[in-house]
Parts: sequence; structure tokens; C-alpha cells
Amino acid sequence: MGHRAAIVGAGHTRFGVLDAGPRALLRSAIDGAVASVDRGVERSSIREAFLATLGFGGWQIGNASAVLAEEAGIPGVPTTHIENACASGGFALRAAVRAVEAGRTDLVLVAGVEKMTDVSGARRRYWLGVSGDTEWERLAGLTFAGVYGLLASRYLADHPGADEALAEVARKNHENGALNPNAHFQKRISRDDVRGAPRVAAPLGLYDCCPVSDGASALLVAAPDVASRFTDTPVFVDGVGAASDHLAVQERPSLTSFPASRWAAEEAFRTAGWDRSQVSFLEVHDCFTIAELLALEDLGFASPGDASALTLSGATARSGRLPVNPDGGLKSKGHPIGATGVSQVYEVFLQLRGAAGPRQISGASRALTHNVGGAGATAAVSLFSAG
Amino acid sequence: MGHRAAIVGAGHTRFGVLDAGPRALLRSAIDGAVASVDRGVERSSIREAFLATLGFGGWQIGNASAVLAEEAGIPGVPTTHIENACASGGFALRAAVRAVEAGRTDLVLVAGVEKMTDVSGARRRYWLGVSGDTEWERLAGLTFAGVYGLLASRYLADHPGADEALAEVARKNHENGALNPNAHFQKRISRDDVRGAPRVAAPLGLYDCCPVSDGASALLVAAPDVASRFTDTPVFVDGVGAASDHLAVQERPSLTSFPASRWAAEEAFRTAGWDRSQVSFLEVHDCFTIAELLALEDLGFASPGDASALTLSGATARSGRLPVNPDGGLKSKGHPIGATGVSQVYEVFLQLRGAAGPRQISGASRALTHNVGGAGATAAVSLFSAG
Repeated sequence: MGHRAAIVGAGHTRFGVLDAGPRALLRSAIDGAVASVDRGVERSSIREAFLATLGFGGWQIGNASAVLAEEAGIPGVPTTHIENACASGGFALRAAVRAVEAGRTDLVLVAGVEKMTDVSGARRRYWLGVSGDTEWERLAGLTFAGVYGLLASRYLADHPGADEALAEVARKNHENGALNPNAHFQKRISRDDVRGAPRVAAPLGLYDCCPVSDGASALLVAAPDVASRFTDTPVFVDGVGAASDHLAVQERPSLTSFPASRWAAEEAFRTAGWDRSQVSFLEVHDCFTIAELLALEDLGFASPGDASALTLSGATARSGRLPVNPDGGLKSKGHPIGATGVSQVYEVFLQLRGAAGPRQISGASRALTHNVGGAGATAAVSLFSAG
Repeated sequence: MGHRAAIVGAGHTRFGVLDAGPRALLRSAIDGAVASVDRGVERSSIREAFLATLGFGGWQIGNASAVLAEEAGIPGVPTTHIENACASGGFALRAAVRAVEAGRTDLVLVAGVEKMTDVSGARRRYWLGVSGDTEWERLAGLTFAGVYGLLASRYLADHPGADEALAEVARKNHENGALNPNAHFQKRISRDDVRGAPRVAAPLGLYDCCPVSDGASALLVAAPDVASRFTDTPVFVDGVGAASDHLAVQERPSLTSFPASRWAAEEAFRTAGWDRSQVSFLEVHDCFTIAELLALEDLGFASPGDASALTLSGATARSGRLPVNPDGGLKSKGHPIGATGVSQVYEVFLQLRGAAGPRQISGASRALTHNVGGAGATAAVSLFSAG
């Protein structure tokens, strides 16, 4: 099967409520990615670029692909804006891998950005809400918290006791985020804090929901055969899978499984030729705590209903046998929409090079990222190995 | 050099002020593309899909890639929403060619759609306006008509007499559109009509500007080696080029040339190994009449300033030696943003198969499409040959 692409550089801004605008965030993440390349890189060798962002609902700036060309300092290069809601970053990485595989470019820039906190509440609910189903969900009054609240209700009804696992997902991810200097929240919380917080959409409370964040992340993706030009320790992309589905959760056979995640994972593992037991850790799309449990099951790391016990066993903690979201996840690190899928790969880049500092997972050699758009409407899964 | 991909099916809705919403338009164009395949096609053989649309500013529906999966009836397939302003369609075609070249899929759906006429004036000006430069143009009061008006002023000052050529572009494209049953305007106009129309942004008048249209178009793009499964007369994609640039026209060396168009054309011709003299006809991005003159020069079919004489010579008429916009162009056929770049390829598909009816260009064997985002901020150029 072999390597399909190589990550040779990665950059990341702080996630959170930031003063910087979208252009400055984008520039900062890209500058960081360029500066991170061990043997250096000339921007003139970047021959393709993809931008992941929901975009101008928040920015009041459109034509985002040209904004990318400007802020990256690469006029002349073809730039493409990919907007797959919250999965934009995962699909942008996939597009970069495709570009490299097509054999027409050696070095591709992938950047993700969102500026969210300067958009007022009502406007933001519309801006984000349209990424869910409109006819059957949004116009009936459901926000994303509402939709995931329904999924959580179903899960808890089917699996009594899983409420403790939801609290543990939040506790664990905050513990990880406390060690991530880029995280929106760098604060430990207890399971009691989670259970005692105000409800947002029952059974989900404040600490079950990811925050609204500003931020950006960027990657440099090279053809495997030229990776050594840039670094002795690339992180290889070995498998990529993606799938789309209906927007409305009512169209799915079950409320507690996202077929798009299952299909994407199957494709990624099949094309990589890997077994799940080889994976050292996961970065999954925990926009709400329930989403992390569903992801563990849909990605094939737990049987239906068993993600709860797996989580409560401590297996998914940073020191466990299958760490999940060592960077804090969307829950604690934050979720600047377009940046999220790119940021997951940033964490993989650090961990697989042994550069994650106090949150380093000992012996990490293979990793999976999982990025979801809407309530399971689209999903992208990628598999990475240390060089 | 050889063939890089093959168009084996194409569909198109009427362009204009339509009752149908975006979902119905999308479905109709896709159904048309599927129905057009000579030997038939199962939707289950579509393994990748791209949607070109500016999107939810007009629709109030987001997560457009999942909408594509729904309306195409292909849940499970990875779908990607590409938003490169008015060049979305050209970049989506390019992504489809890349997907085929990467060797991981045999059949790709490309669809473009825009629903524009149900958006009110002020909201629409914002929605479209953000695709231009915001800091230096939009917030100074410039609409796209204003920007292209400035470019036209510069061109007319440099090339006296070119105002007659602008009028001829409009006259010619309306003459072509009158033969296109899908065109927004199917009405001949005279040069006097153009000159006598109210000014929108001097020197550009009403007939110098493309209309605001609803519509959709779709293509089925196959790997060249499997094209014969679908038809004996595929249309091959032989060259693709694309480039991005700064958003603001003030950043360019000249107001009467778009470097992005030049770079994209160079790449397309270089990768195809073609000479410009081999091209039978062009589909260029004539959002305003001046844009067709600039395109002829930037694409290398006229020297700077000579597009005017070329146009007035009759060479670019349907019966001339280098027909330009035989389908009526954006000017007369209409410009539903995301659909435009896809629609250009629909016309190529008809013409190169000898199926363009009363507007058929005799002996057409090779064609070029040219799709621009913003005022030259991005551009995509593709080259096609008859099978």
C-alpha cells in the first residue's frame, strides 16, 4: 500500500477568543508551517493550496481562495476553497493528498481558518445552523446542540449509565487541553463540574459542548519521494477515506451511528492496508461529548454501546492503551470550524515526531484523524504513520 | 501529453428567472447528465462528486456537499463543495480531473448551481460583492460593475474605438444566445441598442453586463481508459490550468490584463502540448463585455489592444474563424455563479459531438473554456478535444 503523501511542516495559532482577524490568523498559521520545516522551504516551491473555511458569513470577506493566495504570499499558485461545513479541513487534506497522487505537484499547502467570535449570536446561529438540515431540523427550531442532544438522549436510553461516560469525555479532554498551550480552555474540570453545569440541550450541559473559537492551522503536504528534501522525520499519510450522507438525522437507520464515519473509516483502513490494532491514538470529532462515544463505535474501536465502558476504563486517557484527543479535542481545544480538521493533523504531526511536550504519548507511531460535517452529513478519516 | 479525462455525459437546466429552487435545479441538471450517457450509467458507479456553488447566501441551505449527495441520489459517495466565487465551476472540473488522474476513481460527477433571483437587491449586492476585494474596492463603494467599468475606462483610453467592439461583443453574444434554448436572454440586439442603453457603470451600460440568473449544469467525468464503456463519442480533457492572484485590481501591474488568466492558459496549453492555432472555438468568462476583450488577449488569441479589431472583423462570430461564446456567453445565456464554469463545458460537450443544433460550429474539434473568479482573482482554463 505504501505512503500516499508526507506532512513536512505544520503551524497553529492559539484557539480561543482572539483579537486577530481571519487574515492575520491565516497568515500566522501558514508562517508557522513554513518555519517548522526542518531544512527550510521556499514559498515558490508551493504549487497548489487548499483553504478550509466556512467563510464569509463571519468574515464579510469572500473569494477565500484568493485571500489564501494573498496571505500565503503565493500569487500565481492555484488555490481552492473547500467548504464542507465542519469537515472542511479533513476534505482539504484529502484534496491535497489527491493533488500529490495525481503526480502534478510536489508540495501543497493546506490551511484552515475561522473567525467566529465577532459574529453576533443570532447571526451566528443562522451562519452555523444552515450546515444542518434545514427543512426538518433547523426550521423546526433545532440548533446543533439540539440535534446532538437528541442523539445523546437515544444513546442514554439504549445504554443506561452512559451519562457517566459523557462526563468522563469532557473531564479527560479538558485534562488534555490543560497541557496544550494552543487550547481555548486550559483548565481541568471534574465529572461533577460536567454534571452540575447548566443544561444547553438536555441531556447535554455546558461542559458537553465545544466552544465557539477563533483560530487557524496549516500543513505542508509533500509527495513521499521528495519528503527527505524537507525533513528526516516526515509524518506520512497512508490512508484517506471520506463519505457523504443525507443531512437530516431522521434519514439514517439509527440515531446513534453515523454511516458516513463508518464508510470513511472503512475506505481509509482498506486503502492503507492497516489493522485497527496498529493505531496508537485517535483525534476524533468531539463537537459534543456524545460525538466522541459515537466516533469510537463508528470508527470500529468499540462495539455499539461499548464506547461508554471503554471510556470509563481509562483506555482513552492520554496514558491509556488508546488515547483519544490528546490535544484536548474540539471540546477543550476549541472548534474554529474550517481549522478543526487541519488542527487534528497538526497534533498528529507533533505526536508522531515526539514533539508534543508534556502531553506526548509515549511510543506513538500511528494515528487516525476523524472530521465530521453537520450531524454526520459528511466525514473524512485519515491514517498517519511516523517516518 | 494524451487525454487526462473524458466527459461522457452533460446536463443543463434553463438559465433565467426560474420558479425552481436550488435543490430542484441541481437534481434536474444531474438527471439530465445521467440521461445523456449513450450507453447508460448506474449512479452506483459514481465514486466521487464535486459541487460548485457560491451557496448559502442565496439558498439559506448550507453544507452544500451533502445536499449534492442527496439530490444526486448517491449517499455514501465523498462529495466536496468547492467555492471559488465565479470560477467555482472551472475549479470543480479541475478537481474532477485530478481525482481521475490520481487513479482512485473512474467516474466523477461535477455539478454547479446557483439560485440568485430570490435574493433581494441589497442582500445580493453584499452576497456577491464580498467576492471582490473588500478593503480597497467594496468598502469604497465599488460593485463588480464598478470595477469592470474602471477596467473598461482604462481600455478605451488606451485603445480609442474599442467602444464599438464592446457593443459588438454584446450583439454577437445575444445573437448566439437567441439560438440557445437554455439561455436567459433569447433575443437579438443591435449595436445601437447596446450604445443606447442606460449606463450601469460608465462606460458599461445595461447590455454590457451579464444578468443575475438561476440555473444548474452537471457533467460526468470518466477516466479516459473507461470512457468507451459509456459512449463512442466522449469529449476529452487534454489540458487544465489554474491560478490565483490578489483580490484587488490595484495590486496588478496593469488594469487591462488578468495575470491569473495568462498563467492558467499557459499551464493548460503546456500540459496539453497544444498550439493555440489548433483551437476551434472558445468559451470565455464575459461577465461584462470588456471581460471578453481582456480574455482574448490574456488567453493569447490577440495581442494587447488587438482584441477590439479581432472582434470587429467578425472572427469571433459563430461563423468566424475563432468563434467565441457560441452559447451566448454569460452575457446572454446568463451567469448563475456556480453553474457558469460547468455550463461552459456543457456547450463544449455539445459542440464537439456535433449536437449543438442551429448554433453548431462546423468542424469544431478542439475547444477552450475560461472561467474567472472575482476581477481576475482566480482563473481556470481547460482544453478539450473530440473523441
